Amino acid sequence: MDKEKIYEGKAKILYNANSPDQIIQYFKDDATAFNNVKKDNITGKGILNNFISEYLMNILVKNNINTHFIERLDARRQLVKRLSIIPLEVIVRNHAAGSICKRLALTEGQDFKHPIIEFCYKEDKLNDPIINDDHITALGILNSKEIEFIKQETLKINLILIDEFKKINIRLIDFKIEFGKDQEGNIFLADEISPDSCRLWDLDTNEKMDKDRFRLDLGSLVEYYSEIANRFSITLPNF
Amino acid sequence: MDKEKIYEGKAKILYNANSPDQIIQYFKDDATAFNNVKKDNITGKGILNNFISEYLMNILVKNNINTHFIERLDARRQLVKRLSIIPLEVIVRNHAAGSICKRLALTEGQDFKHPIIEFCYKEDKLNDPIINDDHITALGILNSKEIEFIKQETLKINLILIDEFKKINIRLIDFKIEFGKDQEGNIFLADEISPDSCRLWDLDTNEKMDKDRFRLDLGSLVEYYSEIANRFSITLPNF
Repeated sequence: MDKEKIYEGKAKILYNANSPDQIIQYFKDDATAFNNVKKDNITGKGILNNFISEYLMNILVKNNINTHFIERLDARRQLVKRLSIIPLEVIVRNHAAGSICKRLALTEGQDFKHPIIEFCYKEDKLNDPIINDDHITALGILNSKEIEFIKQETLKINLILIDEFKKINIRLIDFKIEFGKDQEGNIFLADEISPDSCRLWDLDTNEKMDKDRFRLDLGSLVEYYSEIANRFSITLPNF
Repeated sequence: MDKEKIYEGKAKILYNANSPDQIIQYFKDDATAFNNVKKDNITGKGILNNFISEYLMNILVKNNINTHFIERLDARRQLVKRLSIIPLEVIVRNHAAGSICKRLALTEGQDFKHPIIEFCYKEDKLNDPIINDDHITALGILNSKEIEFIKQETLKINLILIDEFKKINIRLIDFKIEFGKDQEGNIFLADEISPDSCRLWDLDTNEKMDKDRFRLDLGSLVEYYSEIANRFSITLPNF
């Protein structure tokens, strides 16, 4: 029997699972960019993100990061913990790329003195505006201790992912993650970590191997996502 | 002899002074808003801001805040310390008003759990974008200790100003300040504090008594600025 749909987002659908404290994440092939202005459907993207995110979540779990990930169910579905998602996009920038280049007149690829953590308020109709710690506490989204926990956890995740991508000759330029709370208020990494949510450049050629291939009309998205899976020695189903 | 002009901004001109570690701030009558899109010239505004800013800077000095203010020279000029201005607009929001209402879908006048400090990167051609502490340190604008000093100093200034405006039956909604460094790296409050840089509402009527009268075409700006000077018992020259 098909499970009840809870929510349909841009790239995933969430369904109820058998257990009330779990849900199912279904990875779609839909691609969107620039807050839904640009849209397409790219056969196989959902499958690739499902497998790559499974791979990376398992590595984070091994490194003692609390994540919502339980197990991959099939080509497009994962079983995850049911969380109340915190309405923040947590962005880590190791090098300048994307929106920050235009906002602050930076050169693509330039280094920073240290990684930058940005919080954006997840609200499509406001265009996910950047907010600071004061906004988050003053508006009652999180308290200071929760912000500090998320920052520390995010920096740990960054180091683990930088290392993991370096092993397959890829530079982690930036990425976006989300967190959620369980009923006791414990904070877990949620959502996905995939070439949809990271900027990944080949270490030798600087070729873009991520969703910028869609955003910037560079083409061959599935080929590059498949190359990442291949470098991680992930066995993929046919699609 | 006229002193050499160093810089002309939207509302003030800076000139060299006799001493190399001092400069002269000249208050113009020019009014601009929305990053220079809206412009006008309002006779007497510069004089009012010069006197009101002198009054408030003197109160801050009495309360042990380090400011650049030395003395008012005449109707439109102040002698101030020569500083290297930190390229940040430091905004304090006690209640929601102005840009934050649109950015975060807030109701004008609504309360926060605590005052919000926002940093905007002073760069007209980028539209003064909001940045966070990480951006400031990662781009080398300030170090963490300097940011912390500015935040603590700003919260002290906020309490002093809230109190001072309350005495004349005015609610301090928000304000913008700037800081600068002397040659030894000591940080001082710079620029001005005036109805041009604050949102000020009458405590009883909620009437706007600040630059929003210009921004929102409410009229009678000079009358309201004069009313503030009058409530502070400031003696003004004719203009």
